[in-house]
Amino acid sequence: MPRSAKRRKPSSGSRETLYGFHPVKEALIAGRRTLYQLMVDREDFSERQAQLADLARNRRIALQLLSAQQLRAACGSDQHQGVAASVSALPLDPLETVLDRVDGQRSHCLLMLLDSIVDPNNLGAIVRSAHCAGVDALVVPKDRAAGVTPAVSKASAGALEHTRICRVTNLANSIQWLKKQGIWVAGLAMEGQQTVFEADLTGPLALVVGGEEKGLRPLIRQQCDYLVSIPLRGRVDSLNASAAAAVALYETFRQRHG
Amino acid sequence: MPRSAKRRKPSSGSRETLYGFHPVKEALIAGRRTLYQLMVDREDFSERQAQLADLARNRRIALQLLSAQQLRAACGSDQHQGVAASVSALPLDPLETVLDRVDGQRSHCLLMLLDSIVDPNNLGAIVRSAHCAGVDALVVPKDRAAGVTPAVSKASAGALEHTRICRVTNLANSIQWLKKQGIWVAGLAMEGQQTVFEADLTGPLALVVGGEEKGLRPLIRQQCDYLVSIPLRGRVDSLNASAAAAVALYETFRQRHG
Repeated sequence: MPRSAKRRKPSSGSRETLYGFHPVKEALIAGRRTLYQLMVDREDFSERQAQLADLARNRRIALQLLSAQQLRAACGSDQHQGVAASVSALPLDPLETVLDRVDGQRSHCLLMLLDSIVDPNNLGAIVRSAHCAGVDALVVPKDRAAGVTPAVSKASAGALEHTRICRVTNLANSIQWLKKQGIWVAGLAMEGQQTVFEADLTGPLALVVGGEEKGLRPLIRQQCDYLVSIPLRGRVDSLNASAAAAVALYETFRQRHG
Repeated sequence: MPRSAKRRKPSSGSRETLYGFHPVKEALIAGRRTLYQLMVDREDFSERQAQLADLARNRRIALQLLSAQQLRAACGSDQHQGVAASVSALPLDPLETVLDRVDGQRSHCLLMLLDSIVDPNNLGAIVRSAHCAGVDALVVPKDRAAGVTPAVSKASAGALEHTRICRVTNLANSIQWLKKQGIWVAGLAMEGQQTVFEADLTGPLALVVGGEEKGLRPLIRQQCDYLVSIPLRGRVDSLNASAAAAVALYETFRQRHG
C-alpha cells in the first residue's frame, strides 16, 4: 500500500523550530515535514551548514542568516549547532494504520510502546535505538509522557525524522487492540518470569518499556501477555529506561537476524 | 587477596558534594567514601530522607537541615531531591591492581574502557549499565573526558558508588598493558569485521567504547585486537554511546550467563 497522504493524521498546522545539524538534515532527507525556512548562524557558516543550505536551495526553501543570539531565540535552546528550521509538526500515524504500513511481513513486525517516559532526552535516545534496531513504529501516550518535540529530535540525532510515531490516548486500550491483531505484547519488568535472553522474541511483537521512576504501571503490566526481565548483577535495581530499551531491542534483533 | 587500603590510590583529600537520593544512599551503603556531613532539605523531610538520616546517625555522621536554596547552593545543582552529602573523593584504582582485584576468575574478567566520553550524563548511564551487567572495572582517561564527578554519580543512579574506576593518563598504553596480561581488547566501531553477536565475547575481555561525536580515535582503534559492530537498520549511522555500551555489555552477559 502506498504511503498515501490520506492515511496520515493531518498535522495541526502548528509550526515548530527544529534545531541542530542532524535533526534538520534528516528532516530534509525524510521529507515528512514541510520546511518553511532554514536558519543558519551567519557567523558560523561551516561546510556542514553549506551542505544544508544546498539541500534547501534545491527544494526552494528560504534561507535566513541569523546571529547566534537570534538563532538561540528562534529555537529556545543553545544546542542549535548553528542551524535551525521552521517546520510543520511531524506527521503522526493512527494506531489502526500502523500494522497496514509495517515494512515486510506482518508476522515479523516489531513495535515499541512507551509507558510514562517523561524525559525528552530519554525519549530521544529510545527513538534513536528503536530506529537503528529496525522497529516498525513507536507508540507513545498523549498524557503523562514527553511530547514529540524538537528536543526529542535533537536527542535522537535526527532519527525521529524517519521514525513512525503513533500517539494514543489510552495505552492499555492500545495493548488490547494489538493483542486482538495477533501481536504478542511483552512488558519489560524486573519481575519478569523469564529474561529477554530466554524469551522467544521472534514473532510479531510489541515491547513495552516503563517510565524512568516506577517502570510499568500496574494496569499496563496486567495487560501484557508476559513480562521479561533484564538480568542485573549489581546493587542498583534497574537499568536506565533507554539502556533497557536498547538491550531488549537488540536482543530481539539478534534472535531475528543475528 | 583482600581489598586492602594500601591497594587503593589515596584520594586527594578534596571534598565534594554528592546529591540526590540514590548517590547518597549508595555512598552510605558502599562505604568507599568518607561522609563528613549529611544535608537534608528541612522543608521536605520525607520518609526517604528519614531513612538516610537513620543510616547516617548509626554511623555518627553529622546531619544538617538546610533550606532548598541552601541545599542547591551547596551542591551547585537543583537535582538534589532534598538530600546531599559532603564526602571525600571516590577512591580510584590503579590499572595495575585492577586484574588482581577481579572478582572470581581472571579468565572471565570483563572491563570497559571509555575513549573520549565527555558528557557526564552519558558517563553516568554507562557506569549504571556496566555495574548492572557485572563489569569488574571501568577504565577512563584523565584528559579529554568527563571527570568522575557527583553529576556522574547522579546520572548513574548511585551505581558509581559501587563501581571500580581506574583513571589513566594514556588509554593506548593501558590497552597495550592489558593485552600483555592476556586480556582481549575489542573496540566498538561501525567498521567492525564482525558484529557483537558473531564475536566470541566469553574470554577475558576489555570492551572499548568511543566518544559521542567521533567514536574511537584512530590510535585506539589500531591498538584493539579486533573491532566489533552493532548492526544498524535505519538511516542514522550510529547508536548513542551509552546505548551501544549497554548492547555490547549485555551481549557479553548473554554469551557468558544467558
